[in-house]
Amino acid sequence: MARTPEGSLDAPLPVPDAVLKRRNVRHFRPDPLAPGLLDRLVELAVKAPSSWNLQPWRIVVVRDAAQRERLYAACFGQVQVREAPVSFVFAISQGGWRSVMDDVVRAARERGAWEAGYADAMPRLATRAQEALGERLREYNVKDALIAATHLVLSAESMGLGTCFMNGYDEARVKEVVGAGADPDVGVALVLSVGYAERRGRDPGRLPLERVVFAERLDAPWRGAANQRASAP
Amino acid sequence: MARTPEGSLDAPLPVPDAVLKRRNVRHFRPDPLAPGLLDRLVELAVKAPSSWNLQPWRIVVVRDAAQRERLYAACFGQVQVREAPVSFVFAISQGGWRSVMDDVVRAARERGAWEAGYADAMPRLATRAQEALGERLREYNVKDALIAATHLVLSAESMGLGTCFMNGYDEARVKEVVGAGADPDVGVALVLSVGYAERRGRDPGRLPLERVVFAERLDAPWRGAANQRASAP
Repeated sequence: MARTPEGSLDAPLPVPDAVLKRRNVRHFRPDPLAPGLLDRLVELAVKAPSSWNLQPWRIVVVRDAAQRERLYAACFGQVQVREAPVSFVFAISQGGWRSVMDDVVRAARERGAWEAGYADAMPRLATRAQEALGERLREYNVKDALIAATHLVLSAESMGLGTCFMNGYDEARVKEVVGAGADPDVGVALVLSVGYAERRGRDPGRLPLERVVFAERLDAPWRGAANQRASAP
Repeated sequence: MARTPEGSLDAPLPVPDAVLKRRNVRHFRPDPLAPGLLDRLVELAVKAPSSWNLQPWRIVVVRDAAQRERLYAACFGQVQVREAPVSFVFAISQGGWRSVMDDVVRAARERGAWEAGYADAMPRLATRAQEALGERLREYNVKDALIAATHLVLSAESMGLGTCFMNGYDEARVKEVVGAGADPDVGVALVLSVGYAERRGRDPGRLPLERVVFAERLDAPWRGAANQRASAP
């Protein structure tokens, strides 16, 4: 199992290497993903955690040429959507948790994953919490979808693929493309293109850590783990 | 470099192994992270991509005992926050992009990462796009913060640590804990505890793929990459 700097399905990269290699790819080769690779990515994406394990994501795998063309238009003509052999629409369902709750609890019971008391109480607790969120439930669903999407991205990078996270799309038009144009239950959290990179952009760099990382409180810029220890309050 | 099922700083796990090993950990050992490990996690978290590379996250590293106690209370008494040697508050800044824009562009230019035309136009394009989002900018910032948090989580898992994603906190109280109680610019996207797992929960399982993954459109349940290919529209 030779490990190359690019990774493969048989010898995927360690997490830090995948993180450091990842760039948003704007140009893809036309080659399709091997079916085994695509199945593996889907499987790893849904291993992500979610609030109450209610899995609010509804992931649409777009490979068909005509569908890709429609999605490309809904993404303001970003060429990576046209070029990539597959794009994932991470849709979310606002009310789907009600219909999956029983199955989620049953699976956890069968696997002995939850203590009996928790499994008994969970539907009531989760229902109360989900309903209390009101409009804020969308943000929670978006968070869960983004964790799953990032699982998929880093998995893809580890196997030698390129990826592109996208916020640039018209949500109503993407909903139409996946057949949910008239459904108020459905939102779109992300569009994500995956394939073999034709070329990768250069790293634009990041802000100095002390601008975005802090020790204990937002008024104390981060100076590194060892330095900070002495000055902790 | 022997690779163990647990991973280490010297031999981090491949991405798929880290994904499959990850469980939300509720009980941590008191051992602190080695400083090198913590620095590495911070470094890998901020390698995450963000809208226009504006890096809206403001990550607060909480290790101090009194601060952890306050954060634990703001997280409704979830014991993992008390037990873990470090918790990360992924705060977000609503208006911080204005003050970092020039530095982001300068760094990208110095690295030759952006074509000159793009670097020239980007501040104007990004400003227009960010301002057009209005209240929705929060959701975009949350998305960027969650990508970064997931980078941190999978990196930590690859190095043998345990992690716990948390939605269960009182946002106003967490803001107070990190010293932003009165600042309307600051939001909280996530609280994340990291340390050495005392024990890991069992996998509660996931819904069957055909409930959450779809082919081309939301009315076509996913049946696997090879099966779907023939029936694509």
